[in-house]
Amino acid sequence: MPDNLTIARGARLWPIEEIAHRMGVPGEAVEPYGRGVAKLDLSAANALAGRPRARYVVVSAITPTPPGEGKTTTSIGLVQGLQQLGHAATVALRQSSMGPTLGMKGGAAGGGYSQVVPMERINLHLTGDIHAVTAAHNLLAAMIDNHLHHRRQLDLDPENVRWQRVVDINDRALRHIVVGLGPRADGVTRQSGFEITAASEVMAVLALADSLRDLRQRLGRMVIGYTRAGEPVTAEEIGAAGAMTALLKEAIKPNLLQTLEHAPALIHAGPFGNIAHGNSSIVADRIGIHAGDYLVTEAGFGADMGAERFFNIKCRASGLTPDAAVLVVTVRALKYHSGHYRVVPGKPLPAAMLAECPEDVRAGAANLIKQIDNIRAHGVTPVVAINAFPSDSPGEHAVIRDIAEAAGVRAVVSTHVRDGGAGAIDLAQAVVAAAAGGSEFRFLYPDDMPPDAKIERIATRLYGAADVAFSPEARDQLDAYRQQGHGGLPVCIAKTHLSLTADPTRLGAPTGWTLPVREVRLSAGAGFLYALCGDIRTMPGLGADPAAAHIDIDDNGEITGLY
Amino acid sequence: MPDNLTIARGARLWPIEEIAHRMGVPGEAVEPYGRGVAKLDLSAANALAGRPRARYVVVSAITPTPPGEGKTTTSIGLVQGLQQLGHAATVALRQSSMGPTLGMKGGAAGGGYSQVVPMERINLHLTGDIHAVTAAHNLLAAMIDNHLHHRRQLDLDPENVRWQRVVDINDRALRHIVVGLGPRADGVTRQSGFEITAASEVMAVLALADSLRDLRQRLGRMVIGYTRAGEPVTAEEIGAAGAMTALLKEAIKPNLLQTLEHAPALIHAGPFGNIAHGNSSIVADRIGIHAGDYLVTEAGFGADMGAERFFNIKCRASGLTPDAAVLVVTVRALKYHSGHYRVVPGKPLPAAMLAECPEDVRAGAANLIKQIDNIRAHGVTPVVAINAFPSDSPGEHAVIRDIAEAAGVRAVVSTHVRDGGAGAIDLAQAVVAAAAGGSEFRFLYPDDMPPDAKIERIATRLYGAADVAFSPEARDQLDAYRQQGHGGLPVCIAKTHLSLTADPTRLGAPTGWTLPVREVRLSAGAGFLYALCGDIRTMPGLGADPAAAHIDIDDNGEITGLY
Repeated sequence: MPDNLTIARGARLWPIEEIAHRMGVPGEAVEPYGRGVAKLDLSAANALAGRPRARYVVVSAITPTPPGEGKTTTSIGLVQGLQQLGHAATVALRQSSMGPTLGMKGGAAGGGYSQVVPMERINLHLTGDIHAVTAAHNLLAAMIDNHLHHRRQLDLDPENVRWQRVVDINDRALRHIVVGLGPRADGVTRQSGFEITAASEVMAVLALADSLRDLRQRLGRMVIGYTRAGEPVTAEEIGAAGAMTALLKEAIKPNLLQTLEHAPALIHAGPFGNIAHGNSSIVADRIGIHAGDYLVTEAGFGADMGAERFFNIKCRASGLTPDAAVLVVTVRALKYHSGHYRVVPGKPLPAAMLAECPEDVRAGAANLIKQIDNIRAHGVTPVVAINAFPSDSPGEHAVIRDIAEAAGVRAVVSTHVRDGGAGAIDLAQAVVAAAAGGSEFRFLYPDDMPPDAKIERIATRLYGAADVAFSPEARDQLDAYRQQGHGGLPVCIAKTHLSLTADPTRLGAPTGWTLPVREVRLSAGAGFLYALCGDIRTMPGLGADPAAAHIDIDDNGEITGLY
Repeated sequence: MPDNLTIARGARLWPIEEIAHRMGVPGEAVEPYGRGVAKLDLSAANALAGRPRARYVVVSAITPTPPGEGKTTTSIGLVQGLQQLGHAATVALRQSSMGPTLGMKGGAAGGGYSQVVPMERINLHLTGDIHAVTAAHNLLAAMIDNHLHHRRQLDLDPENVRWQRVVDINDRALRHIVVGLGPRADGVTRQSGFEITAASEVMAVLALADSLRDLRQRLGRMVIGYTRAGEPVTAEEIGAAGAMTALLKEAIKPNLLQTLEHAPALIHAGPFGNIAHGNSSIVADRIGIHAGDYLVTEAGFGADMGAERFFNIKCRASGLTPDAAVLVVTVRALKYHSGHYRVVPGKPLPAAMLAECPEDVRAGAANLIKQIDNIRAHGVTPVVAINAFPSDSPGEHAVIRDIAEAAGVRAVVSTHVRDGGAGAIDLAQAVVAAAAGGSEFRFLYPDDMPPDAKIERIATRLYGAADVAFSPEARDQLDAYRQQGHGGLPVCIAKTHLSLTADPTRLGAPTGWTLPVREVRLSAGAGFLYALCGDIRTMPGLGADPAAAHIDIDDNGEITGLY
């Protein structure tokens, strides 16, 4: 099979205005941004509101191996399959960070014959939304340090500023820095650091806001630090929220692209999947939900992570609830959960995992069963999508079908990477049937449950933990947030995505363990509390041989080395 | 008169495709980027190459007051005036940094009825070119620190890395920082800092490259530091130049917008006006030069700065030479050069300067006469454009006309800010006459003159210095650059733009002084040496009441507080 970039470059794009027209978006709401890319004005949601509501399908996965199990390709393949069945289907995805693209992981536009195009645009800049988030975030940071420098009216404590800076590059040397060195004119000296832009609360806000006005208010509510007396200080008080909103005025408009088979693809916002909720934007879904028969959206990481936040954070904010879910599984991931292989992040999977071994697939069943249950806990019965790889055997696929059927759900093989939509027709039919049945969607916890109890509910009901151990600091923080009136917020548990536990080496579906909560932080603008469990890195580093070193342009001016 | 934003918002934009069509740009080279903005593929230059060459007009100014004398409005007004005379005229401008826009100075899209629209786009992000420069620059920085971290094959000296990081925000706390603190996994600890993106060599490279291929080569040649043995290390050796070019693949395409009177405006690249050459891009001029009867381009700061670099750096790189020049002067600037007023950067001009006083205008004549001579030194006779302000009196304008006529050049009053193109018809007629006469353009110095002699030539012939004092360090650096084969490069003198000297408090046209050259740096990719004279800041700070604090959105979602 040709590589992703070759396939993508061979695509004949339809005019993006035509894609928008088929969604029913009025022409005046379509703003082309270079070939094959448009931004949709938020007025599109109102213009479409009278049209029938699409079936809303969320795509999640079992606990993945480090390279991932193909949620994005499955989401894209599924809409292409739905389209081949004669349904109008839209896919909604996160925008990928350039950090991993230039670092290690490659792009995030799908793969094979299930890609969104133009892939170079998706993987590099797109329409600049991530850069706008970076600019808005760093403007606030500069205004905070400026406030300290000019000794303005707020008694902001320089040692209790919680707002770092961000950059969309993997740059480990910026994790821990000291700013404001040199003469007095060069600012107040203090410790600080950079995170990757996806980890910015501004990115989470962009993903959860439902209008420009709501964005403005959420930005103003963000807590950037504390006074010497311990009172929270907001971006509004720093005077930055208006200008930040102005900087995000274009970024809040969802980006429209197309799949290789010309299904509409909304690519918008890219919040981190651990310290934030890891889902694409609400404003994009508000447009997509009235733009056809099906809206398929991907939720980051495994069902314990992305899908849980989709259900309990995103759906709570948007008011939209899912009709069906897809749980992506691969032969290799079940083998991984057997615990019989040593997998090192950043290195290729061991060759032995490619040899036929149905026994190892069965040995990893517990994780699949648990993640099926995690979706069912929200009143939704998932379809299991077996994302087929060339090295898979029919016997291995049969084992997965057996496991799923024993758990009472349907599993179908999908060859969308090799075959495009034609390879996902069985999956599409299964999703149509599941969505027709509808869901009895329910949140995992009510708003008014205390935050510590919310964390315990997620940990015990979804992760399989026996209990939760809060550090004294975390307890104090939870108390403070409740006193400040934030007790009604949903919670986001920041833990590794490579295990149901907080320890990335524990595979399968461990039970009887304790989730350690080290610290709880407040994202008052995004509207959630997040609990840090284990070692959570918010600024990746580059490897010894970064992907960027292999990217170039050829004699025709085309980009090479992106994958 | 309504404020700039109100006027801009009242504009009825023509479809940008129509503007491009009138320039003769083929439709396939026009890529719309949101309403009223397009990028032009570089193929447009080839498509237009067979058309007649436009007259090429450079707009400069006398030594300005801190708020500036209106080169941008005059450039825009001039093309509108030319258009009213029936000529097809294009204006080429730099893209402004967001730093000053959010800090103090306001936008850079012109003013009054001589603006480029949509002004919100110009002043915030535009099509993301500056962000792409930031990303490319910071990718290289991350790869350099990654190289140190992984102890790769080059013996790069951590204490002799010359490549800092950049951000397009005024952020004084980032001027001097320490990176790589924390455990070993968090990088190599060393002193570093951030500059504003406009100061990045990548920006200068973008402005001077004539193709994507040339961009690739220039990026590879950039020197980022030295080995422990003192040998230069390039971006090519770090392995970053290919990926940087890929990141700049869209950014190298010039942006097309329109003036309020629908004249085409190419806005592209924004290199610093002191440590770099301060001119808009060559690729934009290559398109504009065959897109009508006149191409008007602005050169940053006074004629000793922007115009000198336009003539000796940009024209040398592009091969295009000017047919005429405009020198912008204001009543207030000549009063300023009288030395009778105390002007503080960042504060409004003193009210006393607005009172009628022809004597003070005459007292400032020396600067105007010197800057006229500085343009003539390149074989071009300028037209003096008196940029009229409401507080000016006819008697004050008459004094300027007298000074100019005594110097043998023509001066015309232009009311383009108040009246648009109609206010610039006299100026346009004068420029038509001057361009018809043509120029006898010549460089100020030959390529093969030693760099120290080039600096001396500029200082004595243009600045009015008696001589140049090189520090021992500067002497050593000049020797090293000559030995490394860079002796043939043109030079860029980094000094204040607020004086012909290196001391911003010395007004008029001082003589008998010595230019101190503290240090000479190499921009091997951009292709010039730059000599640091006096205190040159490459990262501005925010004031006690930054402009950003007054920017917001209104109930209609429109941006307020930009000016």
